[in-house]
Amino acid sequence: MKRWMPALTVTAVVLLLVPGCRRDASPDAAPPGAAVTSTDPLPSWNAGTTRTAIVDFVNAVTTNGSPEFVLPPERIAVFDNDGTLWAEQPMYFQEFFLLDRVRALAQSHPEWTTKEPYRSALAGDMKRLAASGEKGIAELMAVTHTGMTIDEFASTVRAWMYTARHPISKRPYTEMVYQPMLELLAYLRANGFKTFIVSGGGSEFMRPWVEKVYGIPPEQVVGSRGKLKYEVKDGKPALMKLPEIDLVDDGPGKPVGIAQVIGRRPIAAFGNSDGDFQMLEYTSGGPGRRLALIVHHTDADREWAYDRGSHIGKLERGLDEAGTRGWILADMKRDWKTIYPPK
Amino acid sequence: MKRWMPALTVTAVVLLLVPGCRRDASPDAAPPGAAVTSTDPLPSWNAGTTRTAIVDFVNAVTTNGSPEFVLPPERIAVFDNDGTLWAEQPMYFQEFFLLDRVRALAQSHPEWTTKEPYRSALAGDMKRLAASGEKGIAELMAVTHTGMTIDEFASTVRAWMYTARHPISKRPYTEMVYQPMLELLAYLRANGFKTFIVSGGGSEFMRPWVEKVYGIPPEQVVGSRGKLKYEVKDGKPALMKLPEIDLVDDGPGKPVGIAQVIGRRPIAAFGNSDGDFQMLEYTSGGPGRRLALIVHHTDADREWAYDRGSHIGKLERGLDEAGTRGWILADMKRDWKTIYPPK
Repeated sequence: MKRWMPALTVTAVVLLLVPGCRRDASPDAAPPGAAVTSTDPLPSWNAGTTRTAIVDFVNAVTTNGSPEFVLPPERIAVFDNDGTLWAEQPMYFQEFFLLDRVRALAQSHPEWTTKEPYRSALAGDMKRLAASGEKGIAELMAVTHTGMTIDEFASTVRAWMYTARHPISKRPYTEMVYQPMLELLAYLRANGFKTFIVSGGGSEFMRPWVEKVYGIPPEQVVGSRGKLKYEVKDGKPALMKLPEIDLVDDGPGKPVGIAQVIGRRPIAAFGNSDGDFQMLEYTSGGPGRRLALIVHHTDADREWAYDRGSHIGKLERGLDEAGTRGWILADMKRDWKTIYPPK
Repeated sequence: MKRWMPALTVTAVVLLLVPGCRRDASPDAAPPGAAVTSTDPLPSWNAGTTRTAIVDFVNAVTTNGSPEFVLPPERIAVFDNDGTLWAEQPMYFQEFFLLDRVRALAQSHPEWTTKEPYRSALAGDMKRLAASGEKGIAELMAVTHTGMTIDEFASTVRAWMYTARHPISKRPYTEMVYQPMLELLAYLRANGFKTFIVSGGGSEFMRPWVEKVYGIPPEQVVGSRGKLKYEVKDGKPALMKLPEIDLVDDGPGKPVGIAQVIGRRPIAAFGNSDGDFQMLEYTSGGPGRRLALIVHHTDADREWAYDRGSHIGKLERGLDEAGTRGWILADMKRDWKTIYPPK
C-alpha cells in the first residue's frame, strides 16, 4: 500500500511531543522576510568553500560572455522545504498540523474518544497510534486533509500557522525557517532565477503561507497532492479534496513533479535528505554548469544534528555520493552564522 | 474507458485531410510574435462592446484606488489553446502531429502496412481507422507519445513544428495563432498579469514552442498529461513517458489542473468551447471583478465558422449561458480586424 503522505510515518507519529505545546493566540505574528541590509547578499553565510561554491556558480551562469552563461528563463532553482528551508524535527510540521486538527475536530466527534486511531491520537498514546499502522494514519490524513474544499483547507492552514507554536522552540513554525536560505532565495532571484519549492509535503499545505514567508508564489510550489473533484454547490464552484493520492512528491517522485509542473530541468537544486537524491541527480545530470547542494544538519546546539540514522530527513546515500558527484555539503554548524531569522 | 487524449476523437480522425499536405523543409521559419507597434495595445480588436469589456476589466483591476483593484500576484489569467490561441480545424493540430509521427515511424515498422490501426492510418483509410475505436486511437497515442524521454519527445515536437504545414492554409501551425489574442496576452502582461495556458492538449506537446510563440514559459502551461517514470540509464537521469493517463485537462479537469499546478483561482479566463465551460465558471465564481470571455468562431471566410454542431470545439452550453452569466462572447468576424499575424 502506498502511504497516504510519505512524510507521515508511523515512527514520526510515535515521536510526537505533544505535552506542553502552547497555543498562543497572536493573529498578527508577522512571519520573517529575508531582510538583507548590507551589500553582502549572503550575510549569514560564513566565508568558506560552500559560500564560494554558491557565488562562483551564480557568477558563472549569470555573467554575460561567460562560457557557462545561462539565459534567465532557464535559471530554474528548486528547493526542498522540510529540513532545507525550514526545520523538520522532531517531526514534520505538517504532522503537528494534522494532530492539532484531530484535536480541534474531536469537539464535534465525541465518539472519537473511544474509537481508534482517534482515541490514541487524542490521548497522546503514541504507541497505540503506531499500532494502527498505515491504515490508521491514512484515516487521520483523510479526516484532516480531505472532505473540504481547497479554499476551506487553505483557511484552516493559515489560521493554524498564526496560532501554533513549535513544542520545543516555542516559535511560530514560520519563524523556524532558515535565515541563510532566505538570503539564498533572495540572492538567486536578484540574479534572475525563478525559485520553486519541490517538497514531499502537501502543496495545499504550503501554498497558503510560502509567498509571505519565502517570497515564492503558490504557482511555484510543487508538492505531494491528493486528487481533486470539481463541484458546483449552491451555484458556487469549488474543488473538493478527495482521499486519494495523486502524486507522492518524494524521491523519484520529485523529478516527476518537476517535469509535470515546471516542465524544464532546473540548473540548481537544494535538499537535505535522501528524499531529495533524485531531484539533485536529475538537476545535476543536465548539460552545462549545475549546482546541487545538501544542507547537512550538524548543529545540535542551535538546531538538530542528524543524518544516517535519523527517523526524519535520513541522509545516507547523499552523504556517501556527494563528493564523487560534485554536490556541495553545506555544514550548518560551520557554514551558517545564524539559523533562524532575528526575532 | 477513458479516452487516451480527449482531443483525439474518432470523428476527428475520420475528418483527417491528409492528401496534399505539403512538408516543406524550412528550419528557420520564425514563429510570429505580438508585434504591437502603435500605442494602441489592441490594434487588431475592432472598437465595440467586446474590446470595451476587456479594457474596462483591466482598468478596474489595475487602477490604484479602484474598488475592484487586484494586487499583481493575484492577476492570474488562463487561456485555452486550441480554438482560443490558435486554430483547431479541421482537427486538433496535435492530431496532425500524431498522424505524421505514425508515418515517420512506419519506416522502421514494415509490419505496420498490414497491421491495424497503423495500416488504415498510413493508407489514409479513415473509415477503417475509426472502426478501430478508442483502443486503436490509444495504441496510436502510445506509439507516438510515449516510450521515449520527455526531452526526446520535445525535440520531435520542435522539429515537426519547423517543417509541418497546415493542409488547408499551408502555413506553419505556429503561424495559425490569433493575432488579436497575441495582443491580448501582451496587453495583460503589460498590466501585471501572469498568463497561463490551460489546455486539453498535452502539456509536453505545447511546452517546446509556446514560450517563443506566445511568450508563455513552460512552467505556465497546464495541459493533459500522461504518467512519467524517473529512470537513470547509463548514468543519465531522464523521465520516461508512460502510456497511462495522469490528467485529462478538459471540462471539469481544467479547474483541477488549475488548482494542482497554479494553486490560485484566476481572475480572467479565455476559452472557445464547452470544454472550457468549467474553467470559465470556476474563474468567474470567485469574489471581486472577473472576466470570462469566449472566442466565438463566426468567420467562415477568414477562418472557420462553428459552434453547436461542431465535431471539434463544440460550443453549446457556453453560448446558451454566456448572457446570464455575464461572460463576453468575442465574435471573430465582428471583433477581430485580422485573424493571423502578418506573414
